[in-house]
Amino acid sequence: MDTRPIGLFDSGVGGLSVLKQLQELLPNEEFIYLGDTKNFPYGNKSKETIIELSKNNTNFLLSKKVKMVIVACGTATSQSIDILKKEYDIPIIGIIDPTISYLKDTYKPNETIGVIATTGTIKSGIWEKKIKEELKNVSVINEKAPLLAIMAEEGWTNNEVAEYTIKEYMKNFINIDKLILGCTHYPMFEKLIEKELPVNTEIINTGDIVARYVKEYLDKKNMKNSNTNKSFTIYLTDQEDNFKTISENFLETKIDNKQINIIDIT
Amino acid sequence: MDTRPIGLFDSGVGGLSVLKQLQELLPNEEFIYLGDTKNFPYGNKSKETIIELSKNNTNFLLSKKVKMVIVACGTATSQSIDILKKEYDIPIIGIIDPTISYLKDTYKPNETIGVIATTGTIKSGIWEKKIKEELKNVSVINEKAPLLAIMAEEGWTNNEVAEYTIKEYMKNFINIDKLILGCTHYPMFEKLIEKELPVNTEIINTGDIVARYVKEYLDKKNMKNSNTNKSFTIYLTDQEDNFKTISENFLETKIDNKQINIIDIT
Repeated sequence: MDTRPIGLFDSGVGGLSVLKQLQELLPNEEFIYLGDTKNFPYGNKSKETIIELSKNNTNFLLSKKVKMVIVACGTATSQSIDILKKEYDIPIIGIIDPTISYLKDTYKPNETIGVIATTGTIKSGIWEKKIKEELKNVSVINEKAPLLAIMAEEGWTNNEVAEYTIKEYMKNFINIDKLILGCTHYPMFEKLIEKELPVNTEIINTGDIVARYVKEYLDKKNMKNSNTNKSFTIYLTDQEDNFKTISENFLETKIDNKQINIIDIT
Repeated sequence: MDTRPIGLFDSGVGGLSVLKQLQELLPNEEFIYLGDTKNFPYGNKSKETIIELSKNNTNFLLSKKVKMVIVACGTATSQSIDILKKEYDIPIIGIIDPTISYLKDTYKPNETIGVIATTGTIKSGIWEKKIKEELKNVSVINEKAPLLAIMAEEGWTNNEVAEYTIKEYMKNFINIDKLILGCTHYPMFEKLIEKELPVNTEIINTGDIVARYVKEYLDKKNMKNSNTNKSFTIYLTDQEDNFKTISENFLETKIDNKQINIIDIT
């Protein structure tokens, strides 16, 4: 058993989609969530900047004595996960490798896989590269969606703007088998996305995949916590007016003001 | 007379709204336009980063032997104009001071002035501060619009997403006398903005104001060019697929591929 908390970081509210699934699967764990709202959005930043921010975030979580760090951010995973894994001794889990494992487990030949993600992630080409390394005879369709993370952060996930934006971004995905939501903000639009795609398209919420991966990992390493009740603390690097409301809606739980702390980690 | 070109920079396509007005008022000038597309968007970046980028941009324009530098970007003006003016000998003109002069010239007591701009600009509070320093008995209503510059850069200025986004952002502006478009990308939405506001609301396109200010400045200093025909060259710090189409539509002119150059200035 390992009673230390699990750490997660994202640029903002996106990683809550990972936290939500983790809480369901691992109800006895304690979570430390870091939203780097001061530097939001990550989606257009350079690789060097993302690496630096990811290290800052990891160092902060380590100072909270976490037992693992989950990079609950698509852009940070795509740009910095290899470096983080090399430089830190603690287990580091991003959203890409667990998803690739899942794709291997559910693979059918001649699949077409859609990937929607931030500009930075799509430009890095990492999803397509990893998918094609591991699966034969698949096609990949990429779409960059520079607006969605920002809309999620504004709480615009269920208005006309969100609806028409999703309509635009889904246009290239009408004939795919699976759609990877390559940014952790995107599950906040899952219902709208579902509406635009044929019923037989599988929407892959990476939060779900990552949570199952983390649970298996903790089981295997005997690192689960069975002591505490479900609890979490949120740290933000900048005040964000909408954060509490968005979090409460998304996590379907009341959040005490004491659970949200503004910190300076630069 | 001064036959050197006029330099402008922006994070992307936004400064074209300034270029367009300059071309109309100053048809004999040559223009060098720098779009820092590699670092787009500026709207959420820290002050320190914006200052560094603005200096890089200014240095590049100086290497092209320009006679003045126009900071054709609301965020760069709000965060870096004072430092640029201090550190460079050449005339540097941003979008704020000319607009404040215009507000003084057209001032009526008890006016309500709306300001819409990027998150960074609104958080800096610079518009409200400068307006209240210069005008008595005015109210200022601020609105941050983190989506618009990105939508403009995608070419989404006339679809349903743009329409509903503008509807949302205009909600607080139904009782104002003047609306300052505090980011040079926003004139691309001017028709949609007009549709949402009462007819007697004056929409202030800073491109228009800056062009008139520059013309007066050149006249006064005897720095106008009467030799060349209207010409301009565009430099971008990163390839952007939509740039040519957006520029051509917005400037209402064909652009030769040779007029767009991709450069590395970091």
